[in-house]
Amino acid sequence: MIGFGNVGKELIRLFAEPKPRFPALVPDSLTITGVVTKSHGALYNPRGLSPSAILQTYRQDAGFDRNSSDFYSGGVLELLSGGDYDILVELSALNIRSKGEPAFTYIKQALQKGRHAVTANKGPLAFHFKELRELAKKRNRLLLFESTVMDGTPVFNLIKHGLRGASVLSFSGILNSTTNFLSELTERGISIDRALESARAKGIVEADPSDDLEGWDAAAKTAILCNVLFDSEITPFQIPRSTFEEIFAKDIRRSVEQKLRWKFICEGTRVKQKIHASVKLTPVDESHPFYRINGTSSVLRIEADSLAPLTIVQENPTVTDTAYGVINDLLEITDS
Amino acid sequence: MIGFGNVGKELIRLFAEPKPRFPALVPDSLTITGVVTKSHGALYNPRGLSPSAILQTYRQDAGFDRNSSDFYSGGVLELLSGGDYDILVELSALNIRSKGEPAFTYIKQALQKGRHAVTANKGPLAFHFKELRELAKKRNRLLLFESTVMDGTPVFNLIKHGLRGASVLSFSGILNSTTNFLSELTERGISIDRALESARAKGIVEADPSDDLEGWDAAAKTAILCNVLFDSEITPFQIPRSTFEEIFAKDIRRSVEQKLRWKFICEGTRVKQKIHASVKLTPVDESHPFYRINGTSSVLRIEADSLAPLTIVQENPTVTDTAYGVINDLLEITDS
Repeated sequence: MIGFGNVGKELIRLFAEPKPRFPALVPDSLTITGVVTKSHGALYNPRGLSPSAILQTYRQDAGFDRNSSDFYSGGVLELLSGGDYDILVELSALNIRSKGEPAFTYIKQALQKGRHAVTANKGPLAFHFKELRELAKKRNRLLLFESTVMDGTPVFNLIKHGLRGASVLSFSGILNSTTNFLSELTERGISIDRALESARAKGIVEADPSDDLEGWDAAAKTAILCNVLFDSEITPFQIPRSTFEEIFAKDIRRSVEQKLRWKFICEGTRVKQKIHASVKLTPVDESHPFYRINGTSSVLRIEADSLAPLTIVQENPTVTDTAYGVINDLLEITDS
Repeated sequence: MIGFGNVGKELIRLFAEPKPRFPALVPDSLTITGVVTKSHGALYNPRGLSPSAILQTYRQDAGFDRNSSDFYSGGVLELLSGGDYDILVELSALNIRSKGEPAFTYIKQALQKGRHAVTANKGPLAFHFKELRELAKKRNRLLLFESTVMDGTPVFNLIKHGLRGASVLSFSGILNSTTNFLSELTERGISIDRALESARAKGIVEADPSDDLEGWDAAAKTAILCNVLFDSEITPFQIPRSTFEEIFAKDIRRSVEQKLRWKFICEGTRVKQKIHASVKLTPVDESHPFYRINGTSSVLRIEADSLAPLTIVQENPTVTDTAYGVINDLLEITDS
């Protein structure tokens, strides 16, 4: 496991005490052999690490206890090459500027060494989906990423298992919780500083807040959906983005009076071989299915060729949902 | 294939000309060897029937052409026992009074003979899910039924593949299109006779209209969801039902003024080992996620233990959606 931020900690917490709250969640066959952080040390033990010991040996500032017998001071790529593991779980933060590095290299290394890969990190897929998918196929391993879009909501499972033989024509959705939540507070007349404070308290702001406010998180999700659904090789850099700032150019008070809401809508369409994708601040009225998407909720509407349009709504997820999505992927591997 | 009503015909139509409209829908590996109707004859040819020939040899009143060299005049159970097929596709109409017979017997026969079974018929699952599931498991065959609830919307695929390890705690939804559509027309002041005429023209009234109006269709879907999600053995007879008539006891005009809508809501909850299920005419206000479910649209909201509540909406499906759900099941079998 690489990355020990909010999602990583929550995942370990679910491993540590899944019962009786979640009776069927984590099977005994899953053992954690390593946890690697960027600058807070790493633990590794091929015989398995105790989930509760992992949590106990970690200190917010100091990281993992250097005196632990499981402390690992070697390199990440060495561990990925020679370590004892079947699945890499990549949970580090989105890095737009580096085009998904170093997570991309880590996932590539794991797949090349014949391991499965599960990631909640949008970067590697937003920039390199096709290469990773081909590599996984070549090595006959699974590359799963349910938590990258709508957290634990089974978007990709729905598409893979529920839309067999169908071709998706277009999608639209509200996929960035932070800007949706901030817009809602703005409508209520709350200042941006106080709104941001409130979003931070909810733990929904990305490591780098500009990823949310400048639309990078939404663009990364849009790119992943395009790449998975349309077999494209689009990157977030090629997707026009509305930034959060644009909301201040709108007459919000008047919009509220007119029962119009401004929503950051991610869209992707395939027309013949051409892909159109955008993240755009768009007014929606009461009759629009996205009108009542509030808080940290998100929504995705999918149009396909052989069935009626589907809309899936996720109500106010927390970090548990993201960790759950990772477990869903792990269970797909253990079931396979 | 048993049953050649609206869904059966649409399925054959999709087999007959899936390309170029639906490029990936029906793989060449799927061949239809037999089509059986209740009183309009049957066709059978172990070398395969041409989908377009099936459609051409059928006349609305007379059924299949008795002079066709593929005409089959033997018994259904004999065909299910000794015929050449890998998958039974059961598409006959819901029969509440007979507790899902004769479809239940047909599916049982196919599974016992080591065949897979796909059904869009609610009866066998609403009354005998556990027995059929156990039988399929024992024979190591698949029993799939995506089209029984919300037509082609991948409800059961979502649950099976997307909610691994999670336990569903409760569900609620609008699952009967006919009563939802009729209620909408009633709100607009349209008389029940004219409303029913309009629903019939849309092809959304069950073979026996009382199945819709007396809530049996909704109760059957509720029973299936309970049996699949909660491992229960509840039948539609045990589920309290609101009938469509109850809507006339409400002051619809006043409700419309108050922005309240009356919806037939299917619900199921598991509290410890106890199951509560009902189909109940319920007032919902504007803030309710079901408020804007109109036309033939349907909705299902699922609460599970380890992730945020999910809602899935299907917009105005047609019979193509039901046929698509059957194909999705067939593709799950050919992929397995």
